[in-house]
Amino acid sequence: MDFFNVISVDEVKKILSSNFKNLKIETEKVNILDCEGRVLSKDIISQINVPEFNRSTVDGYAIKSKESHGCSECMPTFLDIIGEVNMGESVNVDIKNGQCMYVPTGGMIPKSSDSVIMIEHVEKLDEVTIAIHKPISDGENVVYKGDDIKKDQIVLKKGKKLNSQDIGVLAALGINEIQVYKPIKFTVISTGDEIIDLDEKLEFGKIRDINGYAICSLIKKLGGIVVEKSIVKDNYDLLKEAVSNGIKNSDIVLLSGGSSVGTRDYTYDVINSFNGQGVLVHGIALKPGKPTIIGECENKVVIGLPGHPVSAIIVFKIFIDYLVNEILKIKRNKYAIDAIINKNIHSSPGKKTYQMVTLEDVDNKYYATPIFGKSSMITLLSKACGYVIIDEDCEGLYKEEKVKVHLLQ
Amino acid sequence: MDFFNVISVDEVKKILSSNFKNLKIETEKVNILDCEGRVLSKDIISQINVPEFNRSTVDGYAIKSKESHGCSECMPTFLDIIGEVNMGESVNVDIKNGQCMYVPTGGMIPKSSDSVIMIEHVEKLDEVTIAIHKPISDGENVVYKGDDIKKDQIVLKKGKKLNSQDIGVLAALGINEIQVYKPIKFTVISTGDEIIDLDEKLEFGKIRDINGYAICSLIKKLGGIVVEKSIVKDNYDLLKEAVSNGIKNSDIVLLSGGSSVGTRDYTYDVINSFNGQGVLVHGIALKPGKPTIIGECENKVVIGLPGHPVSAIIVFKIFIDYLVNEILKIKRNKYAIDAIINKNIHSSPGKKTYQMVTLEDVDNKYYATPIFGKSSMITLLSKACGYVIIDEDCEGLYKEEKVKVHLLQ
Repeated sequence: MDFFNVISVDEVKKILSSNFKNLKIETEKVNILDCEGRVLSKDIISQINVPEFNRSTVDGYAIKSKESHGCSECMPTFLDIIGEVNMGESVNVDIKNGQCMYVPTGGMIPKSSDSVIMIEHVEKLDEVTIAIHKPISDGENVVYKGDDIKKDQIVLKKGKKLNSQDIGVLAALGINEIQVYKPIKFTVISTGDEIIDLDEKLEFGKIRDINGYAICSLIKKLGGIVVEKSIVKDNYDLLKEAVSNGIKNSDIVLLSGGSSVGTRDYTYDVINSFNGQGVLVHGIALKPGKPTIIGECENKVVIGLPGHPVSAIIVFKIFIDYLVNEILKIKRNKYAIDAIINKNIHSSPGKKTYQMVTLEDVDNKYYATPIFGKSSMITLLSKACGYVIIDEDCEGLYKEEKVKVHLLQ
Repeated sequence: MDFFNVISVDEVKKILSSNFKNLKIETEKVNILDCEGRVLSKDIISQINVPEFNRSTVDGYAIKSKESHGCSECMPTFLDIIGEVNMGESVNVDIKNGQCMYVPTGGMIPKSSDSVIMIEHVEKLDEVTIAIHKPISDGENVVYKGDDIKKDQIVLKKGKKLNSQDIGVLAALGINEIQVYKPIKFTVISTGDEIIDLDEKLEFGKIRDINGYAICSLIKKLGGIVVEKSIVKDNYDLLKEAVSNGIKNSDIVLLSGGSSVGTRDYTYDVINSFNGQGVLVHGIALKPGKPTIIGECENKVVIGLPGHPVSAIIVFKIFIDYLVNEILKIKRNKYAIDAIINKNIHSSPGKKTYQMVTLEDVDNKYYATPIFGKSSMITLLSKACGYVIIDEDCEGLYKEEKVKVHLLQ
């Protein structure tokens, strides 16, 4: 093992994808009221046309549009009102030349009509007659049958992470339950003799399990589920047992701490002790986040995150987000914010540097201020809105340069 | 009532704020594992220093930094290793001139030392001696007691919507439970004779309750809770009863449909029938979203959203998001994406126009494509990433203009 044989962020992503993209995740049926943020495990194909009938988009009178052609303020067209369409009711009346019918917004228009003139644009002369002063075109103020969604059309694709609008689409199709991936199961293990839980007494030399809690929250935010969260002392056997349970009960095991070069670093050995390929990555050309370990044990993912909270969260955002998207084939665009950096940043050539920043809106322009500090400092993170990425072949950024800010959440 | 007496988006926001910002929302205690996205109802003040001791950020040797001054490759400084600090243990050893002590990452450094030299930068001559070739400065590779968080410092402020990093901060402070606002309670009522639920048979002329489901999802996404979701026919008494129950059981009642000018529009009358100020806003200079009604009934918020799904969602994103932030005093920045519009957009001067767009990343530049179509079409929304806002005094946007895209989620 050569600790300093680091590989690039892109190479690590390729390794994650080629080894784990076929990880099998079960699916389940859920009610559409509970599917926000869930990921479709099969395409949604419409069984119906939406709308199922030609519908008015305004309150007005359904007419044959050609009756309005040629009319003007001086030369109005007069039409007989032959009735009213009630909301939610089917209409089988035929409109003949010289006739019209009142239709409310969302109402069905009679078959023989092709357009609706808004009430604001007609003059109602008496209970049975209107005058039109303005020509309208075929299809005006009408949504035709199937205009919105056609029968047999793929409406939402497998891998879609569902948002509120998608839920509206599903409701439109009359779909109550859908097939989605079960949440990916995670085991979170914090390692280190110094790590204590929130209910333990804080003694000098000990620190709270910051990473464990932050990582559990990131997992939930990502749509995963934490099967177990534990703290394990620096002991090979204890760590092996915890990882072994993790592999049995979950899809991804995340360790944090214990991956620095140190006398008590057992993560590497434990990962190599299971059936499977063992350690695939040890050390990434990334700052912060270099001492990350990635391994495959019994077809499950085991990742040793760095011990420092900032580093652990950065590595999570880069690789766990990516891995989950690969496994569930999520097609999701992340957008970065264009900003101007307002301080020089030095980076380490040869490493991809992730620099935390705050963002400020000044006269509709965003300014990014780098937050400097040691990566063990958790307050750095609580101040940060996002990060800028400085490439391997770059020595840093100059004040006033344009940057892309990747939001943390 | 004059329907066309519309007011601007900003005026509506002022009315919402001045009438409802003091709406009383109860608070509750939650475990920090369950507080992602929740809103703090009081400041978090640290009872401790973080770290509570001077801590090493690297694996290395704790020294007095001045011992290293003047050393070089030719003139190394030699130091005696007097021991090792174990992780998680308190150390009371004094380091004297000419001495050092091994400290792992995160370990406590002896009181008399002020810096740690990384193991990569020392030459270990034998079990008890190292040579240093490079001077280091006071504080190098050390986080001092309280450097991260100081005792009695306000760490997170009331109104903070908690993210994963904040949860890390709370863990660092040893805080297990925090006081947050209970989710704001919503009642969602879809009105209209044509609206049917997902388990009803679809007949010609009827449409599914698209808005009800999309709005419930938006509410959950926002951190609210839906107390009841129902569909009510166009009938004054039924609507009055549903709103009356909503006012009793929730903080905000959202109606959708029934707010267009139409014979069956009872929303306005129902809002005015309760104790309170009744209708505050009827009609907004907004496209889409003009026929929105906002009222106050018995100190609760009652809002009639437009019937078209696109309009209802836009109005929700503009005003309900805003209202919840006002009520809970949430200080949260939303960032817009800089993009180039790739088609001309015509807007309606005098109205604020919200135009749905898709976003595409081409060579690190974002291009926004407007999605045109009737606002009743739900597929418009499922395609949209966000929207651009065209101001009241503007006639539209030209192709190639720079725009800000506000993401929908």
